[in-house]
Amino acid sequence: MTYCVSLCLNEGMVFLSDTRTNAGVDQVGSFRKMALFQSPDRFFVMQSSGNLAITQAVKEFLSQGTLFGKKNLWNVQNAYEAAEVVGAAIRKVYDRDSKALLRAGIEFNCQLNFGGQIKGEVPRLFQHYSAGNFIESTPETCYFQIGESKYGKPILDRVVKTDTPINLATKCALVSMDSTLKSNISVGLPLDLIIYKTNEFKPFASIAIDNMNPYFKLIHQEWGNKLKQAIMEIPDPEWSATSASPNINQAATSLKNLPIFSPKKDT
Amino acid sequence: MTYCVSLCLNEGMVFLSDTRTNAGVDQVGSFRKMALFQSPDRFFVMQSSGNLAITQAVKEFLSQGTLFGKKNLWNVQNAYEAAEVVGAAIRKVYDRDSKALLRAGIEFNCQLNFGGQIKGEVPRLFQHYSAGNFIESTPETCYFQIGESKYGKPILDRVVKTDTPINLATKCALVSMDSTLKSNISVGLPLDLIIYKTNEFKPFASIAIDNMNPYFKLIHQEWGNKLKQAIMEIPDPEWSATSASPNINQAATSLKNLPIFSPKKDT
Repeated sequence: MTYCVSLCLNEGMVFLSDTRTNAGVDQVGSFRKMALFQSPDRFFVMQSSGNLAITQAVKEFLSQGTLFGKKNLWNVQNAYEAAEVVGAAIRKVYDRDSKALLRAGIEFNCQLNFGGQIKGEVPRLFQHYSAGNFIESTPETCYFQIGESKYGKPILDRVVKTDTPINLATKCALVSMDSTLKSNISVGLPLDLIIYKTNEFKPFASIAIDNMNPYFKLIHQEWGNKLKQAIMEIPDPEWSATSASPNINQAATSLKNLPIFSPKKDT
Repeated sequence: MTYCVSLCLNEGMVFLSDTRTNAGVDQVGSFRKMALFQSPDRFFVMQSSGNLAITQAVKEFLSQGTLFGKKNLWNVQNAYEAAEVVGAAIRKVYDRDSKALLRAGIEFNCQLNFGGQIKGEVPRLFQHYSAGNFIESTPETCYFQIGESKYGKPILDRVVKTDTPINLATKCALVSMDSTLKSNISVGLPLDLIIYKTNEFKPFASIAIDNMNPYFKLIHQEWGNKLKQAIMEIPDPEWSATSASPNINQAATSLKNLPIFSPKKDT
């Protein structure tokens, strides 16, 4: 399994990936799920999830810039066209492999986050599906996840907006990853983190984070403590009708239609 | 979709279920996913998820206590035997329906949480799978979820232990449900909540909670605020090597093996 998250903010972009791959819990490996494409006027990061043979092939085809007729990541005019090139790379792998995968009973499974900036545009973020089609993030939904996304989604939904400062957003991404690591053993350290600031066309930071990283250790410890503290600070439910604080019984309908079964006389 | 959670604690048990059913987002209904079986010396709650026709049939067969030879929920000697009776009810539905479901291309899908107490034992909690087999909760894992379980799992993992007071555990279950409601529209209000206190053999509380419930409204508002506050209280990542607080760069290996692609000369 995999967990990757990308955030597209006014200030820039955050890309965070785990590095664990597995084919069953007894065949676990560590592979990089992030790749970077950069030149003086463009900067792209791709995160991948799904069948590793497929996603590595997509990366290879993209790096061989000449394989898509006239368009490639280095000559397209805008990020949307770059996303089209990525979709074309997925379809090229499909054309090569899908029949054999079908015979083997293996699904053609490939999800990508692909985002970055071309000079003259703002940063843009896309998510590609196995069919090579893709969607783009918007101010309402400024992040994309791939892989094991559910455990780490609530914190992103509650905090991250396009105007969130990039440092706070990075913290949220790390908390989101920490929650996922805690609940799913098939997602694992080290983490790859790339931070891109708008109009810089090179990474502001690109680091690998393992369990010795003091900041990630801080997040891991503090977040658990803060969650416990937060739940303690919310008042317990009050059952007495005379309590002043919000009463869980108040306005509650009793479960009068609940199916309640009792023994029949003859049993 | 469904989200149900059951907690088995020293002080008693908490059962919380949503009530939304759906077959596609355009065919949404509201059905009770909770049933109660009680007599003076025993108390059981069943929560169900999966194919509604199957889970309703299981409930019906269980309520017709005489259908399982000599054993039924009212005469078994302990909760483990009661769980066996529930498993037998699932298999009875399987025997009746599975061939026709197979023809129709429909999976035989039935997950249950089943828990309670028989006089002379402590409360016990089980989770049943579609095959009628089941597992029992232990002090290490004292809760079971069915349905859309991932969004609401982190808070349970961090807070709930068997010695957690029942009011705090109820609060955690409601927060877990609130996170699920926020992230998955196929889980919906009203909620059914049953609280059982050890050795009472009747519900301490059995209420329906809708969006007018003042305590659930409090949880909904406060939890979002507390999460935002918690993340603000964790220091932002420090990038400067001279900072005193935990430095995200410190002990971080740079992504030296990251695949970085640049345009080839001939492109």
